[in-house]
Amino acid sequence: MEKLDKLYQGKAKKLYATENPDVLWVEYMNQATAGNGAKKEDIEGKGVLNNRITSLMFDLLKARGVESHFIRRISDDEQLVQRMDMFPLEIIMRNVAAGSFAKRYGVQEGTRLKRPVLEFCLKSDELGDPFVNKDSMIALGLVDEDELEQISRQARAVNEALLDIFGKIGVRLVDFKIEEGRNSAGTILLADEITPDTCRLWDERNYQKDAEGSHRIERLDKDIFRRDLGSIIPAYEEIYRRLTDLADSENISLRQ
Amino acid sequence: MEKLDKLYQGKAKKLYATENPDVLWVEYMNQATAGNGAKKEDIEGKGVLNNRITSLMFDLLKARGVESHFIRRISDDEQLVQRMDMFPLEIIMRNVAAGSFAKRYGVQEGTRLKRPVLEFCLKSDELGDPFVNKDSMIALGLVDEDELEQISRQARAVNEALLDIFGKIGVRLVDFKIEEGRNSAGTILLADEITPDTCRLWDERNYQKDAEGSHRIERLDKDIFRRDLGSIIPAYEEIYRRLTDLADSENISLRQ
Ligand SMILES: Nc1ncnc2c1ncn2[C@@H]1O[C@H](COP(=O)(O)OP(=O)(O)OP(=O)(O)O)[C@@H](O)[C@H]1O
Ligand SMILES: Nc1ncnc2c1ncn2[C@@H]1O[C@H](COP(=O)(O)OP(=O)(O)OP(=O)(O)O)[C@@H](O)[C@H]1O
Ligand SMILES: [Mg+2]
Ligand SMILES: [Mg+2]
Repeated sequence: MEKLDKLYQGKAKKLYATENPDVLWVEYMNQATAGNGAKKEDIEGKGVLNNRITSLMFDLLKARGVESHFIRRISDDEQLVQRMDMFPLEIIMRNVAAGSFAKRYGVQEGTRLKRPVLEFCLKSDELGDPFVNKDSMIALGLVDEDELEQISRQARAVNEALLDIFGKIGVRLVDFKIEEGRNSAGTILLADEITPDTCRLWDERNYQKDAEGSHRIERLDKDIFRRDLGSIIPAYEEIYRRLTDLADSENISLRQ
Repeated sequence: MEKLDKLYQGKAKKLYATENPDVLWVEYMNQATAGNGAKKEDIEGKGVLNNRITSLMFDLLKARGVESHFIRRISDDEQLVQRMDMFPLEIIMRNVAAGSFAKRYGVQEGTRLKRPVLEFCLKSDELGDPFVNKDSMIALGLVDEDELEQISRQARAVNEALLDIFGKIGVRLVDFKIEEGRNSAGTILLADEITPDTCRLWDERNYQKDAEGSHRIERLDKDIFRRDLGSIIPAYEEIYRRLTDLADSENISLRQ
């Protein structure tokens, strides 16, 4: 496989064409951003960790019946994926109130939700990724009824599988963001990445007590960067280590 | 019927108890507000017009099979309604992109939507009436699945009936906000008001041409106040007059 023209550079990844029109070459960068790019920094080691984590994750998901765009990892910071026609949507699943949800509805961060909440935002930097509901997505022509049905079903299946995966490694899956697209055969699939950049992950093994003796949330995700709580690297390494142990224990053959 | 204790004063109406615990006495005020109360003004004649318009509207809706909390109009600016347990929701139906929708999604105001869009906001002045989707409403315990189903069905039925009513009087129904509640018998019903305060209504009879010769939107609703386009009174009077003519032509017996 050959790395040809650069097709797109996002905030976290570069996409390259290959000689196969159905295959993209993805390079994970060290760049971290928050607040729609308002905060930006290069963090040594992040690209490698995220490339390794998301590759492992797509293998763990496949073992649970959840297919994705992932083909195989080809280097420390690169992987091959199926080229997709992306839906311009951020697909968010929440199990516990946190971040913008907690703030928007005045709910204490950490409150378990009665049931998983699926939210959609229109991917648009200019518009600030506005919240969008099902009627609006269809009225705006972003998806049709059938696509929305499939996307929603897949998002809930990803959540079930991730709850299982993170549950087994002592991590609380608070919420996450995925993206979906349609491959050249017309199949709707999970795409983009699943990493501590795109999930809220709270440690359930090594949490500390605060001054009042109640549990302090130990964050193993990009909130460490967003909220200036230190370096993300040890946290991302910890997630990577635990996921590797899980894949080992499940005898999963890694696509690399 | 007797007017007893004042139970609540909102931005547009006062609610009083009556000797019947299932009946409220509503007084329509002259106050107009916009931007969640940021802009506020007393407009002579507004209370009377809105009380008359919403009373007429509930009669026109009833004639189309849409029930509501309305019992009868008892004076120029007062009416009796069933006392409801209100859902803390603003229920918004949109047929044409305008206002916050147009801005949020970068759509030209006036664009006809492919299909009516139903939106919900959590009624909370402190939180700024945040947008809320179905999953979140249920997860937050605002409604249950069955209530949401009924509320949505009723909102779509109100839209169909209002499209018919406004279509017959030469007015384009762009969007509107309703509220729903449960009466003492447990029935979910349309409540609150339907007036030019709560609808976007564009005249299709007397629009003007602008400098370029294209149609200028003639607003017959509270946007005149929100956007400082003059007095709302002639517009509200025009709506009242046309609705009266329609009710006459349909031989509707008014509850007053
Ligand atoms: N399989 C795929 N085929 C095509 N595009 C993809 C695929 N997977 C992910 N993408 C897109 O790759 C782009 C680059 O990813 P990155 O995370 O760097 O972008 P971003 O900065 O988060 O978002 P964006 O640049 O889209 O606003 C994203 O726009 C994403 O939608
Ligand atoms: N049938 C009813 N029974 C009980 N409450 C009702 C009924 N109809 C409307 N209401 C409530 O009456 C209140 C007063 O109305 P008004 O329009 O003045 O309030 P508002 O300023 O728009 O909103 P709010 O004060 O609720 O933030 C509203 O809170 C509305 O939900
Ligand atoms: Mg991204
Ligand atoms: Mg009101």
